[in-house]
Amino acid sequence: MSFEVTRSDLAGRIGRLKTNHGTVETPAYVPVIHPVKQTIPAGEIRGMGFDMVITNAYITIKNYGDAAVKRGIHGIIGYDGAVMTDSGGYQVLEYGDVDVSPEQMREFEAGIMADLAIPLDRPTGLGMPKVEARRYVDHTVRVSRETLLASDRGNGQIWVGPIQGGEHSDLVRRSVRGLLGAGFGMLALGSPVEFMESYEYGLLSRMIIAAKRGIPHSVPLHLFGAGHPLTIPLAVALGCDTFDSASYMLYARQGRYITEDRTRRLSEMSYFACPCGVCSGHTPAELDALGDGGGGEAGGRTRALALHNLHAIKAEVDRVKEAIAEGRLWEHVVKKCRAHPRLYEAVGVMAENPDYLQKATPAFKKRAMFLYSPEDQFRPEVISYNEGIRRFRTAKRSLMIMPETERKPAYLTPEYRRLREGTKDFERYQVCQYSPFLGLIPVEVSDVYPASHYVAARVGQDPRAFPVFERTWRRFLENNRFDEIVYDEEDRFIAHFVRMVS
Amino acid sequence: MSFEVTRSDLAGRIGRLKTNHGTVETPAYVPVIHPVKQTIPAGEIRGMGFDMVITNAYITIKNYGDAAVKRGIHGIIGYDGAVMTDSGGYQVLEYGDVDVSPEQMREFEAGIMADLAIPLDRPTGLGMPKVEARRYVDHTVRVSRETLLASDRGNGQIWVGPIQGGEHSDLVRRSVRGLLGAGFGMLALGSPVEFMESYEYGLLSRMIIAAKRGIPHSVPLHLFGAGHPLTIPLAVALGCDTFDSASYMLYARQGRYITEDRTRRLSEMSYFACPCGVCSGHTPAELDALGDGGGGEAGGRTRALALHNLHAIKAEVDRVKEAIAEGRLWEHVVKKCRAHPRLYEAVGVMAENPDYLQKATPAFKKRAMFLYSPEDQFRPEVISYNEGIRRFRTAKRSLMIMPETERKPAYLTPEYRRLREGTKDFERYQVCQYSPFLGLIPVEVSDVYPASHYVAARVGQDPRAFPVFERTWRRFLENNRFDEIVYDEEDRFIAHFVRMVS
Repeated sequence: MSFEVTRSDLAGRIGRLKTNHGTVETPAYVPVIHPVKQTIPAGEIRGMGFDMVITNAYITIKNYGDAAVKRGIHGIIGYDGAVMTDSGGYQVLEYGDVDVSPEQMREFEAGIMADLAIPLDRPTGLGMPKVEARRYVDHTVRVSRETLLASDRGNGQIWVGPIQGGEHSDLVRRSVRGLLGAGFGMLALGSPVEFMESYEYGLLSRMIIAAKRGIPHSVPLHLFGAGHPLTIPLAVALGCDTFDSASYMLYARQGRYITEDRTRRLSEMSYFACPCGVCSGHTPAELDALGDGGGGEAGGRTRALALHNLHAIKAEVDRVKEAIAEGRLWEHVVKKCRAHPRLYEAVGVMAENPDYLQKATPAFKKRAMFLYSPEDQFRPEVISYNEGIRRFRTAKRSLMIMPETERKPAYLTPEYRRLREGTKDFERYQVCQYSPFLGLIPVEVSDVYPASHYVAARVGQDPRAFPVFERTWRRFLENNRFDEIVYDEEDRFIAHFVRMVS
Repeated sequence: MSFEVTRSDLAGRIGRLKTNHGTVETPAYVPVIHPVKQTIPAGEIRGMGFDMVITNAYITIKNYGDAAVKRGIHGIIGYDGAVMTDSGGYQVLEYGDVDVSPEQMREFEAGIMADLAIPLDRPTGLGMPKVEARRYVDHTVRVSRETLLASDRGNGQIWVGPIQGGEHSDLVRRSVRGLLGAGFGMLALGSPVEFMESYEYGLLSRMIIAAKRGIPHSVPLHLFGAGHPLTIPLAVALGCDTFDSASYMLYARQGRYITEDRTRRLSEMSYFACPCGVCSGHTPAELDALGDGGGGEAGGRTRALALHNLHAIKAEVDRVKEAIAEGRLWEHVVKKCRAHPRLYEAVGVMAENPDYLQKATPAFKKRAMFLYSPEDQFRPEVISYNEGIRRFRTAKRSLMIMPETERKPAYLTPEYRRLREGTKDFERYQVCQYSPFLGLIPVEVSDVYPASHYVAARVGQDPRAFPVFERTWRRFLENNRFDEIVYDEEDRFIAHFVRMVS
């Protein structure tokens, strides 16, 4: 299996996943295709730029039986890109069991030439007692191991190990260990649909992080059922590489229109804020009035809505990719999280896991960081910077805090020159600037990334909202022995911290 | 002049402005059209859904002289919607003066049948000493008054009074008073370009509010030079109805691509996150490689970029309109302000002017308010709610604070029933729930908007970050005479406030 990461930011990355039907650039949204009835032909979906789709092997076996093996899944759905097949685990979740064995499913998925295939798992879902969930996890790991062992490992087909465990973090980790131990080169995280439906984005984030902490960087992760523009940036930022969803079609059937931050009922909309082919030709009322009389592939409301929904999802994926390429994924995700208060709770989960987000965040970036509000003190670049400052040593015995300058680095500014020229024995001072968000900036390192590479909102900040600053401040004063601190007593932010140590 | 407001939120509104060439729905972005050379023909711009454009009367008179009067401005630029003409004030700003008198300009703009016309003003720009700026303001008011007096007031042409004053709020107010006194039914605010170029969005906001506070609700306001998706939501939220900009074309010539939150160099982009006709057919590299060899109307990079830029601007205007229609303009603007730290500073200016934003915000809304972080305590619905609670009176002498319930209103929840059944002499308690964002919620009014119509992020809140809550809390305890307060001492938020008064 070949998966190559080319760029990363937070735990998100741009990668190239090689399959038997072409290379898929990740992060990738993977539209769900029905193996029998398609409102939008899979070929048309390919033309829109989706290089991978997912379909259901269980429904395929039920509808086509062994004939499917002769036609192959690509022939059946009419798609020449990468096809992933889900195995019927969802049906197990819905109906309790299916009348196909894991062995039959393995043979079938291999036979229809799925590019990526999922063993027949037994999902835990949400709210399952832990003892039972553990049995499900172990069952799925065992079946998956057997599937992989019995498979031809040289034919280019990628078997994807389904992680189970639901809200039980330790079971999620157990599941990951089991599947990696069995040799899976790609994993898929199950059952977030219920998290989504109950808006538990904080729990979803914790589950993803619990899984990802145990997965090597080289192993791609698929997330089931999470393909809404609302959640895509978060899922990518936490390290999901591919994610499927049928929502573009399910919502379309209900007359619902996907936007970057929610799903709206067409009947309640006044304006289309979208330049896609569907929206630029219609008002919401006109599209609603279309109905599905025309039906099928010829036109109709469902088809039009589904097409728009795909455009909206694709635009969000591209926005996230561009944010990774620009090194602005934190900014994008935090902004996006203001689409719903429950989603915003996930920012808190990110703040609790700085070490996790630091690992793949580049140490140097070309563009200035934008800093807005106290949550930004937890972004990985800031945490890494503070770790450095906590190791800073000086022999000087006097500390001077000078105000932040608009231009950077400090030592090249007229403000600094005036200070140097106007201060007696200037050399005896350790001079520092500071930003509430970024922390202390000793003038000696003020040209090092990111000390000169940030723009912060100029609004009064409550010092008590900055624990990262506080910790660095205390460590800085412990590590160095200052007899005096010179600062502007009118500056209430720094005065708070000086009082703290005096 | 006819301008009808159909919906409003914050100080933003959806309106219908009648002109001699059709009704324009506001807020409206008004593309700048060059009267001689057009890369995108004005008719094509009309087809994209822009029902009003602006062109320059000074350049028109210089190029076509009196022949322009015969052809009319609609014939010259090839556009059958509403045409606004700027008068040369920008040229005055750039070159010091123009060789046309205000009288000549009035006759010319009337002669070419501009639907909306601006008298020849003398812009103050930014950084002009106050004494001089005041002379400019008074000059512009006088010239504008003369223009209006000499004009045929029954011909349907709308004369737009140009507000001057720059960063001097009192001069802005003086300018507004003068123009309204002269009888203008529509005004235009000048010179924000320099604010924009220096990213002074806080100053821009203050200037708009200073002007708008003196302008009746029935008078539409045009904002010069502010047509970027980055600033449109803020400008609309503060009460601007139309706004022009040539940036779609200026940026296109420089190979720059407008997105919802910034302008990017095509050469530095990897992905197009846009489903418009231009973007869905190209990668950034392909579009960049087009160059302008093909040139002119036949194709070329500049034309393609300009078309995309127009699509991006239009999408943002439609997003803002939908936000007004949904009553979510605060949420949209605060989210958008996270596009740049300097823009975020404008949220502080909004927070300082709650009374201004309250006036046109509906007292009742259909949809739940989303509340994320302390800045949301300043949204108009919350301020209005708190004003009501500060008048709440009860004869009861015991106050009981119960935790917030997921379901609302409180009195219909099982939590409340259990409390009622489990508390001796329950009737003697004044029961309140609270939200840090929204404030105290006496159970008697817990079904009144917005007490049951909000969703708040469930994250620990620092009580010191909520001055609006504190003020209401103090007033509530002054207005009512409680001998005891029953509350959960583990609840650190409310415990902080109980300690404050005990």
